[in-house]
Amino acid sequence: MILCDIGNTTYHFKTKNSDFKIGVNETLTKIKSLKKQIYFISVNKKATKKLLKNFPNAIDISKFINFKTSYQGMGIDRQIVCKYIQNGIIVDIGSAITVDIMKKGKHLGGFILPGIGAYKRIYPNISKKLAFKFDTDINLDKIPLITNDAINYSILNSIIAPIKNIYKKYKTPIYFTGEDSKLLLSYFEEIPYKYKKNLIFNSMKKVIHKNIKGK
Amino acid sequence: MILCDIGNTTYHFKTKNSDFKIGVNETLTKIKSLKKQIYFISVNKKATKKLLKNFPNAIDISKFINFKTSYQGMGIDRQIVCKYIQNGIIVDIGSAITVDIMKKGKHLGGFILPGIGAYKRIYPNISKKLAFKFDTDINLDKIPLITNDAINYSILNSIIAPIKNIYKKYKTPIYFTGEDSKLLLSYFEEIPYKYKKNLIFNSMKKVIHKNIKGK
Repeated sequence: MILCDIGNTTYHFKTKNSDFKIGVNETLTKIKSLKKQIYFISVNKKATKKLLKNFPNAIDISKFINFKTSYQGMGIDRQIVCKYIQNGIIVDIGSAITVDIMKKGKHLGGFILPGIGAYKRIYPNISKKLAFKFDTDINLDKIPLITNDAINYSILNSIIAPIKNIYKKYKTPIYFTGEDSKLLLSYFEEIPYKYKKNLIFNSMKKVIHKNIKGK
Repeated sequence: MILCDIGNTTYHFKTKNSDFKIGVNETLTKIKSLKKQIYFISVNKKATKKLLKNFPNAIDISKFINFKTSYQGMGIDRQIVCKYIQNGIIVDIGSAITVDIMKKGKHLGGFILPGIGAYKRIYPNISKKLAFKFDTDINLDKIPLITNDAINYSILNSIIAPIKNIYKKYKTPIYFTGEDSKLLLSYFEEIPYKYKKNLIFNSMKKVIHKNIKGK
């Protein structure tokens, strides 16, 4: 079984023994040799078309996910990471940062912060003087005294403060997933959190076993 | 006397009876008829050159500002808005949002958030699905249930939460300035704040009267 999470910028593949990404603008020919069944979810129509052109038998599992929420316009990737969490704040840190709240198995809503890559692009775009070197070794208890720190402090706080405020309100564990999570974990040490690297793939497997392979 | 604050994107002019902005890429010929002495500060070299080409007698007052701080790389616009505030958090909301802390006349440091315009550009740049309509009528106590609210909630929180955290730490009044301030004031009702539309120009006048015209 090959799992694939198609995002805004990459195909993220997971096989039994490997885990790799391919940019959505790159060719898929180098994985043509993969013979197992591909199961995927996607938030990117164009990239889905390309996958299906190369692997016509790939199965879109989204129709089996059946996640109940009053939220309008929730991406399938957000739905699946939330699906099997009864109580928690689910933070998926990718090109955007989605934050969702689950309470007693019910989805209460969520919000969407810009991803770290987006913040990296935004500053030099405002002014050349705000070009900077990204750094996650910033003490957020000290007021910055140099522009590079001032920008990194702001990026980190812009992401961390809204998430901590949600934690203060709901007091339920945080589940981090998504590659860039590791950059931020050290700032959440006082909070009960779990880093679930494979949250999306593990949830996909559950959906597949319950609805397709288990049948 | 004509005052001019040259920023990343605009010339901001203030005369006795008018207050107007001209984009840095626009021509300055339409103000050629202004006859009074221009005093300016600038964070934009190219735009400064253009002003001086049109008004060779314009005076850069930055050399008179003499603001003491350990902060490295503090823009002259930030220096002048802080200069005459003994105790306060100075928040200047423009193309970037600068936040500076003054305590007993000493500058403790500051940080730089992206401006609202920058946030508006960043989301559709991450994904076409994140194109949205900016809205400041968002209840930050409710978890969003639709993507447009989710993005506005995130933008507002990304800006407001770090500023409120600084207020909690220093408990000193907030001075808002910069055109976009008005979009955010309603979220600070529980905090002692002042909106000082002309903070930068009033400080410039003080510098001019003490150092140039007063002599």
